[in-house]
Amino acid sequence: MLNPRKSVMGKNRLEAFSDGVLAIIITIMVLELKVPHEPDLSRLAGLWPVFLSYILSFVYVGIYWNNHHHMFHVTQQVGGAVLWANLHLLFWLSLFPFVTGWMGENHFAPVPTALYGVVLFMAALAYAILQRIIIAGQGPGSLLAAAIGKDYKGKASPVLYAIGVPCAFMAWWLAAGLYVLVALMWLVPDRRIERALADGKSPEA
Amino acid sequence: MLNPRKSVMGKNRLEAFSDGVLAIIITIMVLELKVPHEPDLSRLAGLWPVFLSYILSFVYVGIYWNNHHHMFHVTQQVGGAVLWANLHLLFWLSLFPFVTGWMGENHFAPVPTALYGVVLFMAALAYAILQRIIIAGQGPGSLLAAAIGKDYKGKASPVLYAIGVPCAFMAWWLAAGLYVLVALMWLVPDRRIERALADGKSPEA
Amino acid sequence: MLNPRKSVMGKNRLEAFSDGVLAIIITIMVLELKVPHEPDLSRLAGLWPVFLSYILSFVYVGIYWNNHHHMFHVTQQVGGAVLWANLHLLFWLSLFPFVTGWMGENHFAPVPTALYGVVLFMAALAYAILQRIIIAGQGPGSLLAAAIGKDYKGKASPVLYAIGVPCAFMAWWLAAGLYVLVALMWLVPDRRIERALADGKSPEA
Amino acid sequence: MLNPRKSVMGKNRLEAFSDGVLAIIITIMVLELKVPHEPDLSRLAGLWPVFLSYILSFVYVGIYWNNHHHMFHVTQQVGGAVLWANLHLLFWLSLFPFVTGWMGENHFAPVPTALYGVVLFMAALAYAILQRIIIAGQGPGSLLAAAIGKDYKGKASPVLYAIGVPCAFMAWWLAAGLYVLVALMWLVPDRRIERALADGKSPEA
Repeated sequence: MLNPRKSVMGKNRLEAFSDGVLAIIITIMVLELKVPHEPDLSRLAGLWPVFLSYILSFVYVGIYWNNHHHMFHVTQQVGGAVLWANLHLLFWLSLFPFVTGWMGENHFAPVPTALYGVVLFMAALAYAILQRIIIAGQGPGSLLAAAIGKDYKGKASPVLYAIGVPCAFMAWWLAAGLYVLVALMWLVPDRRIERALADGKSPEA
Repeated sequence: MLNPRKSVMGKNRLEAFSDGVLAIIITIMVLELKVPHEPDLSRLAGLWPVFLSYILSFVYVGIYWNNHHHMFHVTQQVGGAVLWANLHLLFWLSLFPFVTGWMGENHFAPVPTALYGVVLFMAALAYAILQRIIIAGQGPGSLLAAAIGKDYKGKASPVLYAIGVPCAFMAWWLAAGLYVLVALMWLVPDRRIERALADGKSPEA
Repeated sequence: MLNPRKSVMGKNRLEAFSDGVLAIIITIMVLELKVPHEPDLSRLAGLWPVFLSYILSFVYVGIYWNNHHHMFHVTQQVGGAVLWANLHLLFWLSLFPFVTGWMGENHFAPVPTALYGVVLFMAALAYAILQRIIIAGQGPGSLLAAAIGKDYKGKASPVLYAIGVPCAFMAWWLAAGLYVLVALMWLVPDRRIERALADGKSPEA
Repeated sequence: MLNPRKSVMGKNRLEAFSDGVLAIIITIMVLELKVPHEPDLSRLAGLWPVFLSYILSFVYVGIYWNNHHHMFHVTQQVGGAVLWANLHLLFWLSLFPFVTGWMGENHFAPVPTALYGVVLFMAALAYAILQRIIIAGQGPGSLLAAAIGKDYKGKASPVLYAIGVPCAFMAWWLAAGLYVLVALMWLVPDRRIERALADGKSPEA
């Protein structure tokens, strides 16, 4: 029912706005790396937990940007539900700087490490909701549905985060290890969409 | 009188600049969520008012982005008056991080909660002015005027904010409730523009 | 000598990058409005000098964005010199948050108010250099040269800033008044480029 | 093997995202210029080391933006490896505000000045990796490989940074001098790509 030109334009602005928010999130996280007042190596060494959590979050935002980019490449219809589901995803991602700083500054203490997992879980949920709404809008023969297939990674991630949260109260490295594991799992590039496209089902065709 | 190509380009840069400013506003608000130095749940719990006001403001910026996006979709002429009316709107929106932080940090105390309402009111006013200038530029048969119709929501919002401001001095939840009410009212997607477009009045046609 | 397609692309990225930097400058200035810890009106009232300087700088960044937008609309060639002249302009504009905060926090004290004028002066100079480089690249019959004409405003502004700097040591309102005067002068939209375009000399033609 | 339309779109969003991150990096660095509470010239003078390191880093981010812009102009294929190599580059550049602030605030003390060089070195390495991945994807007859030629500057830069790091422990001006030298070397615009394009090998052809 939507004017196709409208949808295309809507998608462009949605992508531009999301790119802007993700670019800001990934960059302001570095502000949690507070500049020490002394020029000593020991002061720098004390920043390692903050730095490690910064790297982890940087990689996560990178993964979300990558997947978001692939998902919207095979999306044409952008209605009101997609706009709000996308803002819902950006909301949880916007909490990354806060939980990253809290976890790092407190050297992976139980509560902050668990909260980090909760935010990862909620972001994964928000991504799944957004994906489902796009697929529902595309109807049967959805290119996105075909591209993601069984979506093993998408289903395993929230489960692993949910396991990680209670682990944070037992051993910090167990929870952190799970978060790193999921990140590594996604770092393997998602060839499904590229393959679906290479098979000739161009979204513009 | 304006060169149509010029207007189209002007619109693109105006949209890109507005997207940038809105993306930054929505993201730097999270910096008011100051990372606590202790890893306790109690410290986190103390952040609830700040977090609640962050959610409310996040939703409001999302609503403005959504409406801005729809409004400029049915806008072709972008002259100097539109550029400045748009900057005027962005000015009031740029005060959101300040009033959000002040209201949240002071647990919805009367003065900050009233000031939050004042900024909401001024932003709504600025939006109405921008809308009126665009419609005036489109002349009779304005697509935007047809799309917004009677504009009940646009007229009711500033009235409700204006009621909310004095309420803040009686009971904080009354004022906050009004602000939430208006947000919910707008969360219902504005189908008028989509419908006007679906009726075949494509802005590009 | 440049490939025309290259130039067009370069211009788009230059505009996008400049829009991004200007959007961030205009928005992070609000961070200088430090959220007071007390919910009193008196605390808010104490922020008036910071707020006034924020408004002035917001208007100035808006003016630069507007003029930048018009200038690049009639620019096709974007070589290395233009890229660096543009970065030079962005450098001086990036100091706005610093001088705005310093002037506001110190209630328009002589040194900060003078420094504010110095940065305004340097930004105006950088803008003039950028404009000259673009005109030189366009050669005789330059559309930009025709559009700006005698450029009275562009020539008067740095002179008025230069007068404002020593005034700051005599009376703060004299300097601030001059800065406001120049801003008002530019707020009158620059119809020259729009008129030149309306005369049929479309830059794309 | 990639759908060409897909690649083109991927490149646009990669450029837009990189522009966003670079625009934010270049602008938030100015936040390290902490606004002094006193309106004295002496307080301003005390900021000179911070200001000098801000200028140096501003120029470096400008150089990276420039080179990135030229490199992607002659790039068509944007696969997963390029996306991640680009994020890797952005990661090291995102540390600029931190090391700039640390070096400046400590008046070019040995450890911060050395760390600044380490980050410059890693960014140069990340840029080289990204360049190599793009060239590998383009195969023999790569336009980028032809454009960069022997790449003397690209090879000399990391060597000079590596010399600068130990120099920081001997004399700060020796290390800083080397960093400035490399920046000046790059400020000379990279005409190779422009020349290759002017020779008629348009990337779109």
